[in-house]
Amino acid sequence: MHHIEITDTGITEIGKASVTSPLLNGDGTSHQSFIEEKDRVLVNIRLEEIEADLQKEGPLASFELAGPRRKIYFDSSKLRCALVTCGGLCPGLNDIIRSIVLELYYHYGVRTIYGMRYGLQGFIPKYGHDVMDLEPASVAGILDRGGSILGSSRGPQEIGEIVDCLERMNIGILFMVGGDGTLRAAVKIADEILQRNLKISVVGIPKTIDNDIYMISRSFGFETAVDVSTQAIIGAHNEAAGYPNGIGLIKLMGRHSGFIAATAALAQQDVNFVLIPEVDFDLEGPNGFLAALEKRLALRGHAVIVVAEGAGQKFFENNGGETDESGNIRLSDIGIYLKGAMAKYFKGKGIEVNIKYIDPSYMIRSLPANANDSVFCGFLGRNAVHAGMAGKTKVVIGRWNNHFVHIPMEAATSRRKQVSPTGELWSAVMETTGQLPMKNPA
Amino acid sequence: MHHIEITDTGITEIGKASVTSPLLNGDGTSHQSFIEEKDRVLVNIRLEEIEADLQKEGPLASFELAGPRRKIYFDSSKLRCALVTCGGLCPGLNDIIRSIVLELYYHYGVRTIYGMRYGLQGFIPKYGHDVMDLEPASVAGILDRGGSILGSSRGPQEIGEIVDCLERMNIGILFMVGGDGTLRAAVKIADEILQRNLKISVVGIPKTIDNDIYMISRSFGFETAVDVSTQAIIGAHNEAAGYPNGIGLIKLMGRHSGFIAATAALAQQDVNFVLIPEVDFDLEGPNGFLAALEKRLALRGHAVIVVAEGAGQKFFENNGGETDESGNIRLSDIGIYLKGAMAKYFKGKGIEVNIKYIDPSYMIRSLPANANDSVFCGFLGRNAVHAGMAGKTKVVIGRWNNHFVHIPMEAATSRRKQVSPTGELWSAVMETTGQLPMKNPA
Amino acid sequence: MHHIEITDTGITEIGKASVTSPLLNGDGTSHQSFIEEKDRVLVNIRLEEIEADLQKEGPLASFELAGPRRKIYFDSSKLRCALVTCGGLCPGLNDIIRSIVLELYYHYGVRTIYGMRYGLQGFIPKYGHDVMDLEPASVAGILDRGGSILGSSRGPQEIGEIVDCLERMNIGILFMVGGDGTLRAAVKIADEILQRNLKISVVGIPKTIDNDIYMISRSFGFETAVDVSTQAIIGAHNEAAGYPNGIGLIKLMGRHSGFIAATAALAQQDVNFVLIPEVDFDLEGPNGFLAALEKRLALRGHAVIVVAEGAGQKFFENNGGETDESGNIRLSDIGIYLKGAMAKYFKGKGIEVNIKYIDPSYMIRSLPANANDSVFCGFLGRNAVHAGMAGKTKVVIGRWNNHFVHIPMEAATSRRKQVSPTGELWSAVMETTGQLPMKNPA
Amino acid sequence: MHHIEITDTGITEIGKASVTSPLLNGDGTSHQSFIEEKDRVLVNIRLEEIEADLQKEGPLASFELAGPRRKIYFDSSKLRCALVTCGGLCPGLNDIIRSIVLELYYHYGVRTIYGMRYGLQGFIPKYGHDVMDLEPASVAGILDRGGSILGSSRGPQEIGEIVDCLERMNIGILFMVGGDGTLRAAVKIADEILQRNLKISVVGIPKTIDNDIYMISRSFGFETAVDVSTQAIIGAHNEAAGYPNGIGLIKLMGRHSGFIAATAALAQQDVNFVLIPEVDFDLEGPNGFLAALEKRLALRGHAVIVVAEGAGQKFFENNGGETDESGNIRLSDIGIYLKGAMAKYFKGKGIEVNIKYIDPSYMIRSLPANANDSVFCGFLGRNAVHAGMAGKTKVVIGRWNNHFVHIPMEAATSRRKQVSPTGELWSAVMETTGQLPMKNPA
Repeated sequence: MHHIEITDTGITEIGKASVTSPLLNGDGTSHQSFIEEKDRVLVNIRLEEIEADLQKEGPLASFELAGPRRKIYFDSSKLRCALVTCGGLCPGLNDIIRSIVLELYYHYGVRTIYGMRYGLQGFIPKYGHDVMDLEPASVAGILDRGGSILGSSRGPQEIGEIVDCLERMNIGILFMVGGDGTLRAAVKIADEILQRNLKISVVGIPKTIDNDIYMISRSFGFETAVDVSTQAIIGAHNEAAGYPNGIGLIKLMGRHSGFIAATAALAQQDVNFVLIPEVDFDLEGPNGFLAALEKRLALRGHAVIVVAEGAGQKFFENNGGETDESGNIRLSDIGIYLKGAMAKYFKGKGIEVNIKYIDPSYMIRSLPANANDSVFCGFLGRNAVHAGMAGKTKVVIGRWNNHFVHIPMEAATSRRKQVSPTGELWSAVMETTGQLPMKNPA
Repeated sequence: MHHIEITDTGITEIGKASVTSPLLNGDGTSHQSFIEEKDRVLVNIRLEEIEADLQKEGPLASFELAGPRRKIYFDSSKLRCALVTCGGLCPGLNDIIRSIVLELYYHYGVRTIYGMRYGLQGFIPKYGHDVMDLEPASVAGILDRGGSILGSSRGPQEIGEIVDCLERMNIGILFMVGGDGTLRAAVKIADEILQRNLKISVVGIPKTIDNDIYMISRSFGFETAVDVSTQAIIGAHNEAAGYPNGIGLIKLMGRHSGFIAATAALAQQDVNFVLIPEVDFDLEGPNGFLAALEKRLALRGHAVIVVAEGAGQKFFENNGGETDESGNIRLSDIGIYLKGAMAKYFKGKGIEVNIKYIDPSYMIRSLPANANDSVFCGFLGRNAVHAGMAGKTKVVIGRWNNHFVHIPMEAATSRRKQVSPTGELWSAVMETTGQLPMKNPA
Repeated sequence: MHHIEITDTGITEIGKASVTSPLLNGDGTSHQSFIEEKDRVLVNIRLEEIEADLQKEGPLASFELAGPRRKIYFDSSKLRCALVTCGGLCPGLNDIIRSIVLELYYHYGVRTIYGMRYGLQGFIPKYGHDVMDLEPASVAGILDRGGSILGSSRGPQEIGEIVDCLERMNIGILFMVGGDGTLRAAVKIADEILQRNLKISVVGIPKTIDNDIYMISRSFGFETAVDVSTQAIIGAHNEAAGYPNGIGLIKLMGRHSGFIAATAALAQQDVNFVLIPEVDFDLEGPNGFLAALEKRLALRGHAVIVVAEGAGQKFFENNGGETDESGNIRLSDIGIYLKGAMAKYFKGKGIEVNIKYIDPSYMIRSLPANANDSVFCGFLGRNAVHAGMAGKTKVVIGRWNNHFVHIPMEAATSRRKQVSPTGELWSAVMETTGQLPMKNPA
Repeated sequence: MHHIEITDTGITEIGKASVTSPLLNGDGTSHQSFIEEKDRVLVNIRLEEIEADLQKEGPLASFELAGPRRKIYFDSSKLRCALVTCGGLCPGLNDIIRSIVLELYYHYGVRTIYGMRYGLQGFIPKYGHDVMDLEPASVAGILDRGGSILGSSRGPQEIGEIVDCLERMNIGILFMVGGDGTLRAAVKIADEILQRNLKISVVGIPKTIDNDIYMISRSFGFETAVDVSTQAIIGAHNEAAGYPNGIGLIKLMGRHSGFIAATAALAQQDVNFVLIPEVDFDLEGPNGFLAALEKRLALRGHAVIVVAEGAGQKFFENNGGETDESGNIRLSDIGIYLKGAMAKYFKGKGIEVNIKYIDPSYMIRSLPANANDSVFCGFLGRNAVHAGMAGKTKVVIGRWNNHFVHIPMEAATSRRKQVSPTGELWSAVMETTGQLPMKNPA
């Protein structure tokens, strides 16, 4: 984890928290422990960082801890909440939905919880999606199911219309589970709400199967994705080893960050080459990937390659900045491209190879969370509820230095987290694969 | 299972079985039970078939049971055996290799067992593949691994060269594990052997993940394939249900026979349409698949489709009979084609749909066998050894009416097994999916 | 499968089937294929059995095929059905419930389907269990859940009270899923119904995770049980191999028949000793189990033992014929007993051993069915409905010689199926474990 | 994570690190990034802790980072290393063995690596265990296997004899993987080595499936254990829900700390009661567990209970401080005890209950690591090698505040980590189970 430059870690509040939390018993006692003002965790924790920071003026940067407060903002008996899941599927969505619903219902006594259907479309009248009433019975038995019981969609919707809908429905807290784009929309929604002087909290839970949201050291669903990616690697390895000059090629998720590819290669160490967006590589030339692959085949008779979907985008000229519905740049398919490039290269050399290509993406995204992610999602959901009830807004729930914290939404979306080419993760990949840098001298 | 027309169920033998089996103790007792001449199982077992057969002259058609014989042909102390796996990977190959090696080694006392590398290539000097010496230690711990420790390859090799190799290596029994093409090659090899008057048994174990070999009521790896295909169906269903007008499309194995697609759809009943080679369907028109799909989306908002790779080949004109290395006709990709056809159709109608396409083929083929397949493979391997030791040749080990039997190799390759459009399996698919015939009136 | 002596394979009917099946279209056509009177499958299919039978008078013994009939007995618009699951849990119960409900509802148009709660208790007023209304929505999403959504209980209830309840509720078909004891109760219920001259079909689906019901060549849940038992064997093997003189002992299900123990040992071949009820063994003495185990430890340093729960009951004197609620003889715990006997034996010899004992029973019984069992359960459920609608009674749905058939209930409960000590399964166990008979000379 | 009082975080070194690391290229460059003296991470990272610490004299407490150093102590060409695994099995042992061997062999060029068999017994001549030569081929394919390829044993051995053996074998680095007891032995071994003025590094990797080693925020195998414990919970829930007044009782690992029980209950939220050693509870009385259970049954008809093996030890009087071979106090079996207590209680009240007891312990310990643990173990092993090569001794590799660090061995064994009854984890358990404190007023 690299040094984070952040000065303002303050969280916006929609009003003074003056209501006594229903988590407290009448006599002020509780089985629950509460978070106090002073409960904060340092942003940067390397000794030399701290020593440098101490030379500067001002306090050490720290995040406030997530968790229940003694005083909250909302009177839960009259509160209506809404919940929406946006963007691509990710293991754990149903866990989060369930834990938000149960926490609101059983612990804060909120009885009106709306599930907006199909992402941001759910707010927009023209799509005609019904709203789903959520209560404990509606979330029973959903943990073993992948996907999202609310459904999802990609792409932005008009901010004004969304806030109109929130007003019309008389919502007090809006929980938004989504990626980068969703969180940027959430900032705009929260700003429009403040502009209109409404009392609506907007609480985000960052969703990124790629694990690439800044200041979010771990995102839910990532470990499940790695877990199952290893199945694809085992398959590719068996196929590769099963034929003369067998090549197993697996494309894994990772549009801008290669965390899944790198971590999966460490989890199932049959991989010989890992290609990720953060580490540039050449195909041709003496140091290029194809020459390295040829060497490997000559030596061992087979090879396994993991490529992140965002790797090698430099090979696609003129894709003209096309974007998908979510506004993401439409990537050209590096998996298909590599498969073709390898076939052509070896054909040109008169070497017969057997290439097997595996793209497990949708089998992974649609899985239920594994045990560890499930526990993690439970905490994210409960902490999102605590934050919302306390009147926090423009806030995301994150995991930082082993604590659940409140991170200002704008900070989390300010840039992207990536694999450091000189860090511990990539070093480990280089060590375990035996892969060398694949760049020709300029 | 339909009526089988077969008159000659006799198995060729390379010589008189006059050696006492090492499975017998010195005093003629044994913990093992033995198969006798009279141990045969009927080919056809429906009452009306039998009644009809009894009207005819000649005996009722029956297969001889597989299993150990008291008298065998080979003297195991001097015997050398060879083992080869051919064609595409299939769950269970390592189980079969292991059980053949252990049975030969421990029970018959054979000490020289060669594993030919990379399919039929292994016999041909120009490829330069080493031979693998097989003994119990080489097959320890291989059951949990998918693929084949011997490797495989596709495509034919020159029969004369193969038999030259067998002669040179002084092989007594050749075990061939492979599909249709391999078994046809095995017939030619066995014939060339008989022609040259050599004493080499050729014993086949039919391999077809598609479960489409004639007279083989169950082929190893098929159940494992179905088992794991359900994971792809669950994923596709979650993706489909997760978006407005979501469509999950899974392409499963099945070049000429839709057993995997049909059975997987019964095992995971989230499927709405199953498309297989045996049941013709139209895309366009009032009764066509696209109209049916549109209706389903209008009604339920999402749909899951399973297509066997060999379905709908009529949509590809002019693919000109191209064949792959195994001599199989190269199929055009129905999955990609359907995905495109659906996208175009709904775009033309102004209906937004979300199509997710899953092709899990190589993740399935490369798996280890599940428990049930593993037990099955153990029996196939042991029975192949019993057959070979007894001097049987041009024989495959099959499962017929719940008995392991010897089937003449030529009979098993005489035609292909397919899903009957009027049988119990397809009826069940129609019932559980609610799918109707998708043919327009001529 | 051994020769079955059966003369009367006729199925009782509660009345003439004169109603046209709703599976037929108005014009008499159907996408479904129907079973005709003549569709029967031979009971015995070994050639010599048939030849012997042909010498006798009378027709060859055959079972009628299960499946839909063109003419049925019940008018589905007025029909009420009841469904009950009894005895211990078994993978696949929910699959059967679901397929019965969907078949009745969608294909026959039956709208009133009652789920009786907690086994036979559900019929008896004093327990006060509510009845569950079953319709497609109540069985959605239950396939991935183990157990039974209806619940179960052990033990008999008064037959008269059960039939009173059926009369009171105006039931036309009663589906009973249960084991030996349940099917014997079903016979009595059906007889009492016939006695009272009521028009109620009683259709049984045999449930036995032990796979020990006579004339039922395969029972649902068995393959799933074997599948998961292998996990326990792997664990026991790792524990055994992990310590000096490590011994892994696994107790598996099998009260009177060792099918699970024997088959699991073939599926995961790390097992050195298999102890089952059908094969007598001594503990002490030169040929006894303990001496054999000592030899194995001396040779290899570790050992894995699988014992069926019903094995070695001779070691328990004076357990006085105690029975459990289901009337089964209460077995003494052979697992605990063996663990103690081994500890004592090796202590006496001054040999330090490390014994790890695994009893996975309830983790297995409570699982959902695997893919193959799921497909199987679907057929059992649908065929049970076809049988019931046709007015068959005192019938169980079985799998015989690869066909689904109607078996007279009394025949199926007439005796128990066991592992033959001279058959193919036990021979294979002896071969793969290297185990010898463990009996001392008398 | 609570405040840690530690002043001395210095790591002992056996000599000056003056050899250039082989990880550096000849020209001093490297693909690897190196750890510098200044690379340290704070021990305590809560803001108020830091603020308090800053008031005190002396530097902020910090751990040095684990990882490769530019200068190391050992000349790898002459170095011999030894590796031992001690105590109970734990998922990930083989991953650690493999990563130590591969790192030593490929990256540092160490060619002599000994695997000591069966824990500390391996050092003691009288046991006669062979040493295992370890090289890349010996660790190929071991990742998918549970257990330890080296074997293990419990219990102490004479320190002098162990150091004699190290001297005799001319070992330079000893890697010890084990729990509390093992690490305490490691301290003594390292002290004896220093005493004898030998140049042997002792590097520990803390193993505790219970996750209860102090200052080790995460121990390998724990997540895998939680993952699989959820299977037992699902099974227990299905059994409980399957019968009238069904009770599913699962005993999970946790001798002194309830992390597995608590976390598993969050991962699979079918649990109603969690009993752990850290939270006292009564059985009898108005607030006791049995009364609470009775209430739950009356309300919902079934209940699921998870008990950690070390919970409720107060109920066992006079077990007299017996200890097992590892010197651990022998716990009385709380699972069996609870089962009996519940049976007696409800029998006394005339309430029929169905109790199903599951003890999955050995099925969990013997598993291979899941993907996430596998990645973690790889880092532990590689960092242990870096530490040893640098001449560090009396050090364990730990994970602290998301960094891999060097922790003084004595500090890590100074006390035990436990679940805080007022912390986030236990609060979450109380929330999700709905469980209340179960203590009667004094």
